[in-house]
Amino acid sequence: MKCRKCGQKASINLPEHRLALCKPHYLEWFQQQTERFIDKLHMFTRQERVLVAVSGGKDSLSLWHVLWTLGYQTDGLYIHLGIDENIAYSDQSRAYAEEFAQSHQLKLHVYHVPTELAATIPELSSRRGRNQEKPCATCGLVKRHVMNQFARQYEYQAVATAHNLDDEAAVLFGNTLTWNEELIQRQYPVLDEEPGFARKVKPFYRFYERESAAYALMQNIPYIYDECPFSRGNPALYHKDVLNKLEADHPGTKLVFFNAFLQAQQHHFFQGQPREAEMHLCPRCGQPTQSDDLCSFCRLTEG
Amino acid sequence: MKCRKCGQKASINLPEHRLALCKPHYLEWFQQQTERFIDKLHMFTRQERVLVAVSGGKDSLSLWHVLWTLGYQTDGLYIHLGIDENIAYSDQSRAYAEEFAQSHQLKLHVYHVPTELAATIPELSSRRGRNQEKPCATCGLVKRHVMNQFARQYEYQAVATAHNLDDEAAVLFGNTLTWNEELIQRQYPVLDEEPGFARKVKPFYRFYERESAAYALMQNIPYIYDECPFSRGNPALYHKDVLNKLEADHPGTKLVFFNAFLQAQQHHFFQGQPREAEMHLCPRCGQPTQSDDLCSFCRLTEG
Repeated sequence: MKCRKCGQKASINLPEHRLALCKPHYLEWFQQQTERFIDKLHMFTRQERVLVAVSGGKDSLSLWHVLWTLGYQTDGLYIHLGIDENIAYSDQSRAYAEEFAQSHQLKLHVYHVPTELAATIPELSSRRGRNQEKPCATCGLVKRHVMNQFARQYEYQAVATAHNLDDEAAVLFGNTLTWNEELIQRQYPVLDEEPGFARKVKPFYRFYERESAAYALMQNIPYIYDECPFSRGNPALYHKDVLNKLEADHPGTKLVFFNAFLQAQQHHFFQGQPREAEMHLCPRCGQPTQSDDLCSFCRLTEG
Repeated sequence: MKCRKCGQKASINLPEHRLALCKPHYLEWFQQQTERFIDKLHMFTRQERVLVAVSGGKDSLSLWHVLWTLGYQTDGLYIHLGIDENIAYSDQSRAYAEEFAQSHQLKLHVYHVPTELAATIPELSSRRGRNQEKPCATCGLVKRHVMNQFARQYEYQAVATAHNLDDEAAVLFGNTLTWNEELIQRQYPVLDEEPGFARKVKPFYRFYERESAAYALMQNIPYIYDECPFSRGNPALYHKDVLNKLEADHPGTKLVFFNAFLQAQQHHFFQGQPREAEMHLCPRCGQPTQSDDLCSFCRLTEG
């Protein structure tokens, strides 16, 4: 297989795009595509400051690398979750995030959950009683809150996360199996700024996971190989497996599923009920909440 | 396991309903549930005449049996598709439909495609050029047309088909994977009468396939065991397999998927674009069509 751009031996085949590319042209294509997605959905401009959520994994470090290469104004935010599980998961992943920031002379904020909240994510999760086994819901809550907090505090115009097509399609698939109207209607790679909420963007939403992994490998970006030790048995992983089977049988399934969904969103195909609860500002942290009192984050961390 | 109603040994376990029943109480439950579904969605009353589409298979003969037991006014319609494939598929299935009608003293209309249209379904399909291998699209087109034709000609208030939960969930799943807005928005177990179109109803929409199969077996209804020889490789069967896997891993998945969808329909969650083309009456058969000239059925059968 030959690179379509230069005729040299191709390093990667992208059957969904009917494209094979050598390494330099793949890296160029990947960067250009990212910029296209950013522009197409008006995610942010080179005049705006973007906070990139970095976990130390391949997707988020690739995202930061691409945005840096393209000349966007980015800082990173690493949230140390206090997860050890005998592999020093959080310490290790922080080291990768810090190494990347240093070697590219980029600024990295670090939020250390065990210090700031006097408990690790698994500890906070077990306090909530239900779902003690799996801290994923608590982890998501804390991460969303902290990202928003940093964006507001340091006045970033947007928070970028590295969710890819596999992630987005799996979430959509799970929400569709139960027709969760609110979550279906809210899913989109750009969530505009609202009072108290920073804009959230997902520049990698159209890349397959293997495409962003290939970028990290070809750029020789060191990243943590381990998955979060709590991710096993996660519903999102189950839905990814189902979609991987569908994709293997019918290549392009994920891309069609998610792109057609975005088109439906653009047509306003989904008409949700108005939000039942009005939003208030949490008296402790000032972030919006549907609760009349403290927001979920503050209820969790006050105890 | 004991029957919840009488304490005798149960013949069937229905974990999705947390219910185990002996044979007589299962048959009673199945009939009562059918009546509930008919009433709940206002499908038809005992004062209305219903045309039941019967294929000679377990689902459609069970449906006819239940409606007959419940005292609804039903006649059957068997459409002989001219499918042989070395197992005399159509001749055999007609024999089961006729046997059922005779033994229950019910009226059965028979529409013999090879006589009426001077070609079998596989022959008509190969005329259309594309999809020559699979006559399923042509078969669906002809069946829809003929059912509607009989309903109008003999003034039935509704056409009932025996689509079950597995069928409906598989169709919805396929349409959701590609977000086919028009088909998603139109899917519902009752389609009201429109000018030129009879009301269409699916009284078995909430039964798992194995539930209607159990009914046929327990009632000793003779039916054709063979599936249509062209059904192999059908996308709907593939989607059924995927959903069967999901159901095996998470019992109740299909029921939640389809019921939550119906709730979303009831909330008007889906807001389609207005139909692009206006409907006209076909100058040859008088049925509505989006075409300015002959409808698809007449274009197919005129040649």
